[in-house]
Amino acid sequence: MELLNNILDASVRIKPFVRETYLNHSQFYSELIGGDVWFKLENHQVTGSFKARGAVNKLLSLSKEEKKEGVISASTGNHGAAVAYAAKQLDIPCTIYVPQNASSTKLKNMENYGASINIHGQDCVDAEKKARDESIKINRPYISPYNDIHVIAGQGTIGVEVESQCDNLDTIIISVGGGGLIGGIGAYLKSVSPQINIIGCSPENSAVMIHSIQAGEILDMESKPTLSDGTAGGVEENSITFPICKDVIDKLIMVNESEIQQAMVNYIKYEHSLIEGAAGTAIAALSKLKNELKSSKVAVVICGGNISINNLRKILH
Amino acid sequence: MELLNNILDASVRIKPFVRETYLNHSQFYSELIGGDVWFKLENHQVTGSFKARGAVNKLLSLSKEEKKEGVISASTGNHGAAVAYAAKQLDIPCTIYVPQNASSTKLKNMENYGASINIHGQDCVDAEKKARDESIKINRPYISPYNDIHVIAGQGTIGVEVESQCDNLDTIIISVGGGGLIGGIGAYLKSVSPQINIIGCSPENSAVMIHSIQAGEILDMESKPTLSDGTAGGVEENSITFPICKDVIDKLIMVNESEIQQAMVNYIKYEHSLIEGAAGTAIAALSKLKNELKSSKVAVVICGGNISINNLRKILH
Repeated sequence: MELLNNILDASVRIKPFVRETYLNHSQFYSELIGGDVWFKLENHQVTGSFKARGAVNKLLSLSKEEKKEGVISASTGNHGAAVAYAAKQLDIPCTIYVPQNASSTKLKNMENYGASINIHGQDCVDAEKKARDESIKINRPYISPYNDIHVIAGQGTIGVEVESQCDNLDTIIISVGGGGLIGGIGAYLKSVSPQINIIGCSPENSAVMIHSIQAGEILDMESKPTLSDGTAGGVEENSITFPICKDVIDKLIMVNESEIQQAMVNYIKYEHSLIEGAAGTAIAALSKLKNELKSSKVAVVICGGNISINNLRKILH
Repeated sequence: MELLNNILDASVRIKPFVRETYLNHSQFYSELIGGDVWFKLENHQVTGSFKARGAVNKLLSLSKEEKKEGVISASTGNHGAAVAYAAKQLDIPCTIYVPQNASSTKLKNMENYGASINIHGQDCVDAEKKARDESIKINRPYISPYNDIHVIAGQGTIGVEVESQCDNLDTIIISVGGGGLIGGIGAYLKSVSPQINIIGCSPENSAVMIHSIQAGEILDMESKPTLSDGTAGGVEENSITFPICKDVIDKLIMVNESEIQQAMVNYIKYEHSLIEGAAGTAIAALSKLKNELKSSKVAVVICGGNISINNLRKILH
């Protein structure tokens, strides 16, 4: 109930800073499943992914004092860009920790939003640990990519939009990493339209939340590299997304790298637009479930479009 | 004046069927020119290009009788998809003539909108001639891609949107093929904000309108193949776009294939989205003019996103 109210609040207060994205009908995938497929285009969201919603909502929730002092986060990806964007919009100082190997294009993008970049350690785990230590040391909020009720509520505003953009939805398919996206959308949809089937999907190479739900507890396990970099990585111990995901997800499915690649290529071919691997994961899940989704009305969350040119070359090869 | 009124009418009546597209700030290109660059995203328009605006407006302008009998057009590209889309929205029968070599994906796309496809001849010129002959023979309207005041007025609604979406624009850059897009946008902007500098651009390999304006008369000349397929081809004898273009365009510029390719690759790299060659032409023109556009506020019309996967592979090679 607290989450639902947070989502409803978020859907009003983040409006000036994010976009209500299109819900696009897909002829190709509707035919493929013999049903009616709609894509929720968060690849057109500001910063190129849904992460802007959660970051804006979280930063709006801070106290006046916290806003003045500034925030800390760690990410080289969509979350980092989203926090930097939100901080710029709200005029909040912002420091992002990144590892030494971070791509200069991504750093430039965050710097353009006015974020201070601190380079630390060999990989994202190092950078995140340093950011958390620093946030405690200097007493500034650490902005988590998913383990935060305001972040989850921000992502949940996608559910509010989808619900207002289409009637009689049977199923929604959402990629799962830390679980903030599916947790927020699922919590909203389950409360207003409990009959909607919530399907969560992850790449086989990194499906920590799926394995954790199946095991009944958050597992600490290794991930292999995946095209779906936006969903890759572990789930934080005691993450509040775990009970939410357990509660709202009706079905879990994993897809392999070749299925993700095929989905990304098909999207270019038939939708003439670019998506990142995490969105390819959701479309690959749609294809894989085509028999059981036959004749139904399905929404797929296209969570982001930030694919690197190297990954693009790789999938087209 | 008649065109201006037509554009204002169009901007109201086409609303239920097309999108008001985003005007996106571009950090990369703003820095490149040392100014402020905004992209008008017609690649997100329904059917993936601005052509939907003109086609919808034209079909709305038909008499009740004409709407009942149906329309004829010829195109394997964006115009064909736009006419088919508009006809479906307005429940108007629609026949599109295409040459034998037309790609099956593009035909499928038009058939999905409910258009009847007639295959005729070796190339687009053959198909267009047959379509025109047939339209006279059976007395049904032939829908021209640019030589029609209602089509031009539909494209001009982009000018109405740009004007409402940003203040103090110095320059707008628009690709030129038959001249319908720049004619419509230019006619509107010159009447409401005559100080805005209208720049028209074409690929060196096919720049018939540019050469015609320079010669003072419509020239009949050969085109070479170009990545900018959306603007390629000749300008119809006596096209009404010719005097409009002469009147509204302040500057003309041509770009070569390698400049277009570079623009398309940069767009993927920095904007994480796909554009077709005709949009690449406009961005290439922006880059080429960066010195004279320094410190100014520039809009670039991203006219469409319908790039084939083969062309995408080619530019990334």
